Amino acid sequence: MRALSQLKSLLSPELLRRAQRPRALGQAAFSRLHGLGHIVRSPFGRSTRVKAPTLTLDGECRAGRVYLVGAGSGDVELLTLKAARLLQQAEAVVYDRLVGDDVLALIPAGHERYYVGKARGHHSVPQAEIGALLVKLAREGKSVVRLKGGDPGVFGRMGEELAALAEAGVEAEIVPGITAASAAAAGMGIPLTDRAHAQQLRFVTAQLCRKDGEPDWAELARQDETLIFYMGLTKVEAICAGLRRNGLPDDWPIMLVANASLPEQASLVGSLADMPEKLAASPLPSPCLIVVGSVVRMVATSPAAAQSARAEISPPR
Amino acid sequence: MRALSQLKSLLSPELLRRAQRPRALGQAAFSRLHGLGHIVRSPFGRSTRVKAPTLTLDGECRAGRVYLVGAGSGDVELLTLKAARLLQQAEAVVYDRLVGDDVLALIPAGHERYYVGKARGHHSVPQAEIGALLVKLAREGKSVVRLKGGDPGVFGRMGEELAALAEAGVEAEIVPGITAASAAAAGMGIPLTDRAHAQQLRFVTAQLCRKDGEPDWAELARQDETLIFYMGLTKVEAICAGLRRNGLPDDWPIMLVANASLPEQASLVGSLADMPEKLAASPLPSPCLIVVGSVVRMVATSPAAAQSARAEISPPR
Repeated sequence: MRALSQLKSLLSPELLRRAQRPRALGQAAFSRLHGLGHIVRSPFGRSTRVKAPTLTLDGECRAGRVYLVGAGSGDVELLTLKAARLLQQAEAVVYDRLVGDDVLALIPAGHERYYVGKARGHHSVPQAEIGALLVKLAREGKSVVRLKGGDPGVFGRMGEELAALAEAGVEAEIVPGITAASAAAAGMGIPLTDRAHAQQLRFVTAQLCRKDGEPDWAELARQDETLIFYMGLTKVEAICAGLRRNGLPDDWPIMLVANASLPEQASLVGSLADMPEKLAASPLPSPCLIVVGSVVRMVATSPAAAQSARAEISPPR
Repeated sequence: MRALSQLKSLLSPELLRRAQRPRALGQAAFSRLHGLGHIVRSPFGRSTRVKAPTLTLDGECRAGRVYLVGAGSGDVELLTLKAARLLQQAEAVVYDRLVGDDVLALIPAGHERYYVGKARGHHSVPQAEIGALLVKLAREGKSVVRLKGGDPGVFGRMGEELAALAEAGVEAEIVPGITAASAAAAGMGIPLTDRAHAQQLRFVTAQLCRKDGEPDWAELARQDETLIFYMGLTKVEAICAGLRRNGLPDDWPIMLVANASLPEQASLVGSLADMPEKLAASPLPSPCLIVVGSVVRMVATSPAAAQSARAEISPPR
């Protein structure tokens, strides 16, 4: 971290020229995002010069290091600047199935890329093999991006990979991403928490690893919370039934959002009582995020709700 | 959303030239992030041309619309591409105190900017006034970015502003950001969830708006969850005491992370029993994120933990 902060103070071209540290700065200056908005071409062939923003970004991408990077929710514009930069710099990229083509298009031609996701009808590459691949690439002296959908720290199975890297003595760095819950709420025009609706926010997976294989519904059935289920599309009926059985009212709001942040975003807004039926009538693709809580009521009046979402809930059932 | 998806298919310069839709495309092509990584200048004055990435980003920034944008956790590189683009395009930016100077530096000179955060010793601008300002700017026909630290949907008080915009009939759009919890965990080298540690993740504010003003500690004292407190630095002692009183063991892990993702990131790693004392001995600045849960144990062995964090927990107390 010290080297980065030093670089930050050195990033005007004038200061860069004055600095006499060719090795460190050569790499950093070459790699930072210098041109963002710098030259813009019009669709009619003219080049228009616009004011260059004063971006003070450092650009380290270290050989032999593995960057565990969040690819965000789908829309390439929801990548972080850091993720976009590293994707362009890294000598090898290891990615899986929740990463979209627009994001992969950032990887320069000729750079190594490895797909380790689930192929149609096949199992995913086992975590142990992914860990071994990351170690191998780093030991070859490459800079490596391990790209994961969403935020790698939220239900991203990053722990196994970190352990493999630690065991092999390989350096790592985590770059957070926009998790599906944030993108889904934004796409529907609502916050995840709101003082009038929810004082807390909880993320669970529908595939909970409990001893008895069943979530503790009594504990999840709260009215002061926004409850998010990741990977729960096949469990919608069980979720609605479990929460109703444990005290949430029949008309308690729930929404399902598939392909959040993408043009093909699709959603269903309803209640615990009617959602299973709505979903059966209008199936959504997986992965699909499930949001339970009274904040969902805000979709109806939000000035930021997608047209399709507003159409869907008006007139009220 | 339809216009955006149409543009996406039109974004190669060749296709753009061929398209005969000057009004829509002029704006979009002018504003999208075209130069990312396009021209890179070395610190020694030479210009090096690197392969232009095939970024297929549309660049809409509509007059009269308010974009509620997450500024991320602090590091300017954790802005999303969309946030960076909108900051450069919008005619007016309204921001508050959790937004860093590096981020504000992206706003072109001459564009309007309004600070609505808390001044030293003064109160924040009331939410109603912020809402009125957003409405006024949008009605003047400006494109407006309302920039909020972190993710605007997570304890960001976005609901009040959305309501003001809805009431005035102003269009809005939400752009999610990296929330402090994701940045803090990433900065400490750990995930927020891990199959061996936590099957769920809960975000609460230490300033909970309960009737009796006291969190339901019994309900928060769980061993299968990662529990995050936002805005809780002054409540560390109460948090540790409340959780211990309700069954979490004395040696249950807790960490505090201030300035997550910035070079000045500072942290404390300890247990519910010793954290109040550690914090008294080494005070941290606010805002500070609090993480409670056994995932915190992963800091000790993470290959992605900050040097300072590793030093801090080794040798073990």
